[in-house]
Amino acid sequence: MATALVGIIMGSTSDWDVMQNCAQTLDQLGVPYEKRVMSAHRTPDLVIDWARGADARGLKVIIAAAGGAAHLAGVAAALTPLPVLGVPMESASLKGLDSLLSMVQMPGGIPVATFAIGKPGAVNAALFAAATLALSDAKIKRALEDYRAAQSKKVAEAKLP
Amino acid sequence: MATALVGIIMGSTSDWDVMQNCAQTLDQLGVPYEKRVMSAHRTPDLVIDWARGADARGLKVIIAAAGGAAHLAGVAAALTPLPVLGVPMESASLKGLDSLLSMVQMPGGIPVATFAIGKPGAVNAALFAAATLALSDAKIKRALEDYRAAQSKKVAEAKLP
Amino acid sequence: MATALVGIIMGSTSDWDVMQNCAQTLDQLGVPYEKRVMSAHRTPDLVIDWARGADARGLKVIIAAAGGAAHLAGVAAALTPLPVLGVPMESASLKGLDSLLSMVQMPGGIPVATFAIGKPGAVNAALFAAATLALSDAKIKRALEDYRAAQSKKVAEAKLP
Amino acid sequence: MATALVGIIMGSTSDWDVMQNCAQTLDQLGVPYEKRVMSAHRTPDLVIDWARGADARGLKVIIAAAGGAAHLAGVAAALTPLPVLGVPMESASLKGLDSLLSMVQMPGGIPVATFAIGKPGAVNAALFAAATLALSDAKIKRALEDYRAAQSKKVAEAKLP
Amino acid sequence: MATALVGIIMGSTSDWDVMQNCAQTLDQLGVPYEKRVMSAHRTPDLVIDWARGADARGLKVIIAAAGGAAHLAGVAAALTPLPVLGVPMESASLKGLDSLLSMVQMPGGIPVATFAIGKPGAVNAALFAAATLALSDAKIKRALEDYRAAQSKKVAEAKLP
Amino acid sequence: MATALVGIIMGSTSDWDVMQNCAQTLDQLGVPYEKRVMSAHRTPDLVIDWARGADARGLKVIIAAAGGAAHLAGVAAALTPLPVLGVPMESASLKGLDSLLSMVQMPGGIPVATFAIGKPGAVNAALFAAATLALSDAKIKRALEDYRAAQSKKVAEAKLP
Amino acid sequence: MATALVGIIMGSTSDWDVMQNCAQTLDQLGVPYEKRVMSAHRTPDLVIDWARGADARGLKVIIAAAGGAAHLAGVAAALTPLPVLGVPMESASLKGLDSLLSMVQMPGGIPVATFAIGKPGAVNAALFAAATLALSDAKIKRALEDYRAAQSKKVAEAKLP
Amino acid sequence: MATALVGIIMGSTSDWDVMQNCAQTLDQLGVPYEKRVMSAHRTPDLVIDWARGADARGLKVIIAAAGGAAHLAGVAAALTPLPVLGVPMESASLKGLDSLLSMVQMPGGIPVATFAIGKPGAVNAALFAAATLALSDAKIKRALEDYRAAQSKKVAEAKLP
Repeated sequence: MATALVGIIMGSTSDWDVMQNCAQTLDQLGVPYEKRVMSAHRTPDLVIDWARGADARGLKVIIAAAGGAAHLAGVAAALTPLPVLGVPMESASLKGLDSLLSMVQMPGGIPVATFAIGKPGAVNAALFAAATLALSDAKIKRALEDYRAAQSKKVAEAKLP
Repeated sequence: MATALVGIIMGSTSDWDVMQNCAQTLDQLGVPYEKRVMSAHRTPDLVIDWARGADARGLKVIIAAAGGAAHLAGVAAALTPLPVLGVPMESASLKGLDSLLSMVQMPGGIPVATFAIGKPGAVNAALFAAATLALSDAKIKRALEDYRAAQSKKVAEAKLP
Repeated sequence: MATALVGIIMGSTSDWDVMQNCAQTLDQLGVPYEKRVMSAHRTPDLVIDWARGADARGLKVIIAAAGGAAHLAGVAAALTPLPVLGVPMESASLKGLDSLLSMVQMPGGIPVATFAIGKPGAVNAALFAAATLALSDAKIKRALEDYRAAQSKKVAEAKLP
Repeated sequence: MATALVGIIMGSTSDWDVMQNCAQTLDQLGVPYEKRVMSAHRTPDLVIDWARGADARGLKVIIAAAGGAAHLAGVAAALTPLPVLGVPMESASLKGLDSLLSMVQMPGGIPVATFAIGKPGAVNAALFAAATLALSDAKIKRALEDYRAAQSKKVAEAKLP
Repeated sequence: MATALVGIIMGSTSDWDVMQNCAQTLDQLGVPYEKRVMSAHRTPDLVIDWARGADARGLKVIIAAAGGAAHLAGVAAALTPLPVLGVPMESASLKGLDSLLSMVQMPGGIPVATFAIGKPGAVNAALFAAATLALSDAKIKRALEDYRAAQSKKVAEAKLP
Repeated sequence: MATALVGIIMGSTSDWDVMQNCAQTLDQLGVPYEKRVMSAHRTPDLVIDWARGADARGLKVIIAAAGGAAHLAGVAAALTPLPVLGVPMESASLKGLDSLLSMVQMPGGIPVATFAIGKPGAVNAALFAAATLALSDAKIKRALEDYRAAQSKKVAEAKLP
Repeated sequence: MATALVGIIMGSTSDWDVMQNCAQTLDQLGVPYEKRVMSAHRTPDLVIDWARGADARGLKVIIAAAGGAAHLAGVAAALTPLPVLGVPMESASLKGLDSLLSMVQMPGGIPVATFAIGKPGAVNAALFAAATLALSDAKIKRALEDYRAAQSKKVAEAKLP
Repeated sequence: MATALVGIIMGSTSDWDVMQNCAQTLDQLGVPYEKRVMSAHRTPDLVIDWARGADARGLKVIIAAAGGAAHLAGVAAALTPLPVLGVPMESASLKGLDSLLSMVQMPGGIPVATFAIGKPGAVNAALFAAATLALSDAKIKRALEDYRAAQSKKVAEAKLP
């Protein structure tokens, strides 16, 4: 089994329903990844250890999903030099507006690259991670080109009733 | 000098302009405090050490101010058993709505007691910290009663043109 | 039966569905509480009497839940020196944004410590009340430590498919 | 001097800058009024006494202005059978959205008739109070007709450069 | 049958589901009313005629319900000296925020007294109309007192599980 | 002087500061227009007469600017078969979000083509009116092509420091 | 079969559920149209070719529907001199507020005439397109008059229970 | 002069005031870049050519800044396999909420990595671009480590009055 290049972390097992779209997209593109539940608030030590060791373990990109006061991506970004991608989860009452602002409005100095709320963001974080890896991996670059060609074809051939 | 009972932390020196209202209110109520700049994102180690040691150093309440993707209060709350109060700073573009949601929408398990955006929140966090301490400190309780009596009197005697 | 240390009030019986999570959390932590329906608008006298007498009856912390133009917490806070915690209920149309702003944006002088909209806020208000009481009650402090250790363990051991 | 028919209350002297537009409009329409600063939070007793006695003192309509977690109108409405009109003040950070929702989203049972944020609302509350009084006062009805005729004329005669 | 004192108008038959709560509340209070579907946009002539004739037909208060770009209340208010009450309907996508702002943010000169989005607003508009009529009708005043006493009693006697 | 093809109406003379950008753009494109202040609320008769007669007077497109509870465009659209374009004015407190929603969220049946808040919307309404007229006027079509070519050139030649 | 005068494009086949209301309204009014799925993001070349050729193919008006970061209408508008109408689709989390702002807030220079979120906007874009064509097509003008007369009649004859 | 690795594009010269913070940060980190004004709406051809050729010209990352209906980043992302970073500009009325949603809410398939509104986002996009390049460039990795160490030191040494 290939060494994971992408680390997917999420604040709760309930986020998996959305984040499996991220994992499946990485699978389609042939990008090896690891996935793990950890919470910036409920398991701070776990996050600290995991994020601090990510670079040394060979990860290249981190994708963090969280909802509400979504601190996981920002906390991870503070602890690693790796690029951190954030996927705001749709929250119960405010529908992810809180999650989005908690991720994207990072103060200058520590960036979190933020994607759309929910499933589109989960897919796009995977595609973006692949595009990052594709800068120095011709195989992933080709897989991404194929993915995009297929998706263009699907839209172009779509038929309305 | 009395041992600090309240620890005020803020993400940036630029927050002091607002947070001095918190400090001044604690001064008025005779509540000893310490204050410190630290950033959940730019100085994670500092926050981890400070929050982990807060209880042992004799602090009873933590007040954390931050703006934008305001993680400082939540990160501190994850690392201490002490009550953590959050004051959302008014941010440049979204005027503190981002700061507010990043603090108040904490997932179940780790609470942040959140107050109003900006100056009213800074004052109220101080009053709330004092009310917490007043549960077992008769002197602070009296100081708080005096403060509230004075403020009632001031409003009641206000004259319109 | 132990004397109640926390008073939970809510604007409507329909809030119980959410606020029972607050009560259950206090139960888990061994914190005695009383609970009561009262409305700042429909039963102002009841609120005035209840809040004015809370301190003398031995309560230490008040948790108030309300939705829409959620005035219950603020009205109670104006009538008692005790710390008042507010839990914004999810409202029918605006999903609790109205409840949240009606609670958290208190003007300087009378604080309401506000928590997340709905269930996470209900749980967190209980945890925060316990943290406040734990400042002078070693048994509650230990119960809270156990609660947090258990929740950390549960997240750390979570398995994704 | 005529007995006041309208009572204007506001949470802070700083609201007068806006609410003088309300008073001036009542002056223009010949509607006698009283005005007073009182705060639902900082002077609850004053509000309770004032609102409870309003009907007996001969007031017919109450206009309440407040900002942020604006509870003044709702609290007054809970304590009087008179119609209560609310004018949300523009607040520092959220620009009155908080004030508006805190007033208008009253739960079923106790209404607050809410007007626009700031100056337009201050003027309109006065006009609405006058329209209410005009139902049984021919002189005020005529004054209102004149006011509206004058304002129509002014718009109709407006010239663009 | 008594002459209608209140005219309830709404933009669409689909608003009746909510606005029947308004009618039922008026029924409970013994306030005679008429009700009618008319649209500021789809039937401007009907609105113009109806609103212009309202005062002469003996109506004292108009209650207008509409959703989305909710102009019905404002258009009616421009055409009658009577007090106009607005009830914002919950809209499909924006959940009534659009309806609320379209009603409450009337420019200075023509007021619309606005109530909460949806059912609470429908009930409260009826109660407010009754409070207005009660200023010169002792029977409605008594009915309103009874209504409020009953609702206070109901809340005060509510039992939690 | 050419017969006006576009009618620009606005709720207040204070809107001219923004709407002169609309007029100037029409001037640049050689599109004759008339302009007029009128208020859906303060001068309903004027709006009714003006909108009803617009088609017969030879107007082809109406551009309506208003702020807050911005009903002018919708009211005009209800009274004419001509295409009505709406420009939401930036309002004092809510910065035009109220104006935008009051215009764009028209219920099915009577459309208002809505443009951006403030100056960009004023310019774009003029350009859109011209594009509409250009469908049957080759001279305006050419003027529009020239305008767009010039603006492309200006952006393409822009130099950064 | 008549040459299409209106081109309806949408970002996804899932938009058809809403946009068929647009097509049906054009059918009712006798306006010939073509419809097509294409995505500004997934099929940029298709959009570029389609929009560039629209004028030459005889189209007079373009209606573009998209959701989320809804760029389709703006991209089409940049590539054609024809009037472009935008219909914001209701999105999964933010309910179309994102789609609306992504369409309506076009910077000065390239207009998109924007309509309400979802079904009302789909119907109204069709009616507006017809009103544009009616400026030089008496048959469509009559069809539109009939449509509006029928809809007025339906509202006027609506009966409440 | 080194070959540009990052391409900064912005919709208007007025964006430079903010985006120079992006350029300066890249300068500090020793990352060569090119910068260019181009508009998705006013110069579509320029954007198409530039984005299509970016990969071949040796660029590795694109940073796009735009405001309002901010389509530039999304349009570029549709035309290149390179990672595209978006910086939402603060807009005149809605303060960048429109810009943010127009960028971040991209539908699944074509990602835009979005950063905070305005200056913090401009700085963070540069830092994120550097972190991406640092994955295969040890010199940039060291520069980034130095940058972060310096910023930690600055916060840690900050003194409050």
